[in-house]
Amino acid sequence: MSGARDVWVLAAQCPSRLGTVDVVTRFLKEQSCYITELHSFDDYQGGQFFIRAAFRPELAGFSEASFRDRFETRATEFGMSFELMAPDYRLPVVIMVSKADHCLNDLLYRYRTGQLSIDVRAVVSNHPDLEPLARWHDLPYHHLPITAETKPQQEAQVRQVIEESGAELVILARYMQVLSPELCRHFAGRAINIHHSLLPGFKGAKPYHQAYDKGVKLVGATAHYINDDLDEGPIIAQGVESVDHSHYPEDLVARGRDIECLTLSRAVRFHQEKRVFLHGRRTVVLAG
Amino acid sequence: MSGARDVWVLAAQCPSRLGTVDVVTRFLKEQSCYITELHSFDDYQGGQFFIRAAFRPELAGFSEASFRDRFETRATEFGMSFELMAPDYRLPVVIMVSKADHCLNDLLYRYRTGQLSIDVRAVVSNHPDLEPLARWHDLPYHHLPITAETKPQQEAQVRQVIEESGAELVILARYMQVLSPELCRHFAGRAINIHHSLLPGFKGAKPYHQAYDKGVKLVGATAHYINDDLDEGPIIAQGVESVDHSHYPEDLVARGRDIECLTLSRAVRFHQEKRVFLHGRRTVVLAG
Amino acid sequence: MSGARDVWVLAAQCPSRLGTVDVVTRFLKEQSCYITELHSFDDYQGGQFFIRAAFRPELAGFSEASFRDRFETRATEFGMSFELMAPDYRLPVVIMVSKADHCLNDLLYRYRTGQLSIDVRAVVSNHPDLEPLARWHDLPYHHLPITAETKPQQEAQVRQVIEESGAELVILARYMQVLSPELCRHFAGRAINIHHSLLPGFKGAKPYHQAYDKGVKLVGATAHYINDDLDEGPIIAQGVESVDHSHYPEDLVARGRDIECLTLSRAVRFHQEKRVFLHGRRTVVLAG
Amino acid sequence: MSGARDVWVLAAQCPSRLGTVDVVTRFLKEQSCYITELHSFDDYQGGQFFIRAAFRPELAGFSEASFRDRFETRATEFGMSFELMAPDYRLPVVIMVSKADHCLNDLLYRYRTGQLSIDVRAVVSNHPDLEPLARWHDLPYHHLPITAETKPQQEAQVRQVIEESGAELVILARYMQVLSPELCRHFAGRAINIHHSLLPGFKGAKPYHQAYDKGVKLVGATAHYINDDLDEGPIIAQGVESVDHSHYPEDLVARGRDIECLTLSRAVRFHQEKRVFLHGRRTVVLAG
Repeated sequence: MSGARDVWVLAAQCPSRLGTVDVVTRFLKEQSCYITELHSFDDYQGGQFFIRAAFRPELAGFSEASFRDRFETRATEFGMSFELMAPDYRLPVVIMVSKADHCLNDLLYRYRTGQLSIDVRAVVSNHPDLEPLARWHDLPYHHLPITAETKPQQEAQVRQVIEESGAELVILARYMQVLSPELCRHFAGRAINIHHSLLPGFKGAKPYHQAYDKGVKLVGATAHYINDDLDEGPIIAQGVESVDHSHYPEDLVARGRDIECLTLSRAVRFHQEKRVFLHGRRTVVLAG
Repeated sequence: MSGARDVWVLAAQCPSRLGTVDVVTRFLKEQSCYITELHSFDDYQGGQFFIRAAFRPELAGFSEASFRDRFETRATEFGMSFELMAPDYRLPVVIMVSKADHCLNDLLYRYRTGQLSIDVRAVVSNHPDLEPLARWHDLPYHHLPITAETKPQQEAQVRQVIEESGAELVILARYMQVLSPELCRHFAGRAINIHHSLLPGFKGAKPYHQAYDKGVKLVGATAHYINDDLDEGPIIAQGVESVDHSHYPEDLVARGRDIECLTLSRAVRFHQEKRVFLHGRRTVVLAG
Repeated sequence: MSGARDVWVLAAQCPSRLGTVDVVTRFLKEQSCYITELHSFDDYQGGQFFIRAAFRPELAGFSEASFRDRFETRATEFGMSFELMAPDYRLPVVIMVSKADHCLNDLLYRYRTGQLSIDVRAVVSNHPDLEPLARWHDLPYHHLPITAETKPQQEAQVRQVIEESGAELVILARYMQVLSPELCRHFAGRAINIHHSLLPGFKGAKPYHQAYDKGVKLVGATAHYINDDLDEGPIIAQGVESVDHSHYPEDLVARGRDIECLTLSRAVRFHQEKRVFLHGRRTVVLAG
Repeated sequence: MSGARDVWVLAAQCPSRLGTVDVVTRFLKEQSCYITELHSFDDYQGGQFFIRAAFRPELAGFSEASFRDRFETRATEFGMSFELMAPDYRLPVVIMVSKADHCLNDLLYRYRTGQLSIDVRAVVSNHPDLEPLARWHDLPYHHLPITAETKPQQEAQVRQVIEESGAELVILARYMQVLSPELCRHFAGRAINIHHSLLPGFKGAKPYHQAYDKGVKLVGATAHYINDDLDEGPIIAQGVESVDHSHYPEDLVARGRDIECLTLSRAVRFHQEKRVFLHGRRTVVLAG
């Protein structure tokens, strides 16, 4: 926790090999960086190593550029990719929605109050309904309607808006359109979707109706990265809520809203705090 | 709760119609039976009514036979089926296992200490391993090995043991054999299975391995009635446990044990307390 | 669940006695009211009976006034107090806040989207900060500052605002002032407070700091009715969240927000749906 | 997770200072020890650093004694205390009970099946009741009755049994006697107790009865180290279960059993895996 409190974050991964931890921790010590929280995991089946360090420079004049340059050299030797995040970094995002507003309302509340260190650059929707909510938070709202015919053009517009916004993450906060495979590939690992079921159960449309038919006693939500296989992207977070026979599909829809909000915002926070690593079809989440 | 404390239980269902509650509650009053807990539910989509009343006779000389006879007349008019259970009733059961003993150990502990009002008549297994555990509880243990060739004969033996035991419920406490469709049909609604996943996700064999492959962040267990569609019987209870990237399949297996035990024993308790009603492919659980 | 779907609700309580259920259910049948959900509980220790019925009139021309009149006669005989609620009833409330806005934001979202059948008449605060949020929802905002000296006058103003608003429930959504004993008594059973700890642990101020000092591994929230004993009013709902050593007091404050929102809104919903009965220092919640 | 799989564990703590991580990780690399899981935490308020590393020696001929000797030198410089645990280490324990057997049954099941890497040396009780359960697991059972007059002598016997057994941890699995301050001090940090409430709420006797009186909607259990302040020792783990108005004190007692078992065994596992660090009145649990 408290990952953002005046600390830098270094997150890295590389193939498993003796010394992977040492290359990181020794460097941090040499740079007089005090490690406040450290978590590493080695997947012995996949042969891949993951590490996340939160640290505080102890010397005045800490230079991000110089840190990067010097660490790059060490990392290269281990085939290590890494990310470095400054304490005051707010992740630029675009949020995509349709008509349902619960996830948007929740994300914007956390954005406005600083609970999520994100910088919402725009809200994009295929419907006009949620413009007032976006406007109240002083955010640009792009209404980009879509039909079967205009899908390619609309997706091109979506891409353009996102690119021009400088967003590093796209949040699909109940955007009820199936993205084209091209767009999925384009955003792979850079877009988080909330699906209203415990994937891989109940893929596709109307999962709460499917859940009702099966008579399940638990419903849930899954936040996952987009990849080119719909509803099969790497899972970041899941949440669950108990239900019973008296919940008709529309009750499940209502009951699922809270858990969707909580699960999506948790996934966004994990991502923003650089706790999530893509690892094939799975994720490693160094949750601290 | 406290359903068993010196109270009788009347559980009934019938097609929806004005007066379904009244026919039960008026009768109870006429018989000077004091209702301590009452729960009814009407499924307006399915057009079916369910009720469960816990009550205490206030007059000396309460006669179960006479109560049944008299209520039968009223119930018939509404097409109502019902069950009546005495305060001291302990449900006769047979438990079926293979080699894994966690659910058996848990059930026998609750049986021995009276936490479950069941009367375990026998333990049946296709392996000899768990005989000592059954013996310590002074229970007959039937080792009935099975091969592809002997399956029909073995299932005939299983049926015979169960019938001779007088069991009203069969508990499949991690019995790792697929029952034949005939046996499933035979036990439909009278056998509870624990499946080690959140059905309908991960049906079939090795669900924890499937869960690992998908990278889920929650695993669970499902207790359901057996019917003729494997792993598709009506769900009674589900439980869930959070996991992460560091849990390999064998860790998931270990981690799932507790939730399997809790979910199965909860389902057995609901069934024993006459809280569960079969309703098509679903259940109604008047959990109180 | 689905308590509000086109159904009336009758909630009643009286001293325990044979026939308490029958007097309700027989009457409903006589009035051709179809019971969709029924729940009763008898506290044998306290000698008090509680019942909640959701029902749908089957005849045209159902008259609330006539129903009340006729049922009154029956109820009187049993010393039964009761409440009747129409399907479209939205409970008039006033929300009181200070500077923290998470519970207000959550309640207003549920109000605006109809998830809570409440009619927010006004927001009252001892600070001006949350006026924009109230205004965006088109709600009157009463800024009534308070000091030790002006407390009696301020409380008189608060009372007046609430009375003039016609509110039947006051929601203390993180109002950080200790109400005077007089005001507590005045609102006893008609005001719900959210306390940010699992009462009775950590009463009083700064409960998350207390929790940190004790090194607890769970923090929680408690929604309770106001009575004349501060933080000791009857509990309606509680929620919990796991924490660890890395959560400093300010992290606990942040982490507790979601569970405060969920617990408070659940309590308000239970109250609005007439599921909560005051019973001495405790509540009976017929949660369905 | 899977901390025990063929890995050594090094757990250490010392005052906060630049290089605390490096002194551990550099040494491990020099010794050709591959780190499979690493977790460190620095308490900036308390100025204390904690680290836990799971590792696998990559060279044949790894010598525990030599590792200890060499690391000792490095650690001394940082004022670092440490523990080293071999992969096959099973922690010797003594379990103390009275009449309630649920926690004992659960612990012995996990011991027998290897789910807990403990070596139960003896069961001690002030009552004879649980001897058959201990005997079935081939364990010595010491029946040491106690009265107000014989308390000093009995405690001396308890101490002797524990010392002679070679136990490194004492598990108070619902031992219903208040230990003397001397015994508490003697076992400080080496004895884990399960208290059947969410401490610090409901200290002392009959916590479920206290919980009933307060009308709480959640009950829980707390596993904590013994220290000289009764029910105030550092908390290791807590668990929670929802309850309602229908649960009388005896129902709460019954309902709490499962969560007591789960919470106690989790705390014992954390301790055995060297995940728990004492830190004043609190614990740091590097749960992985």
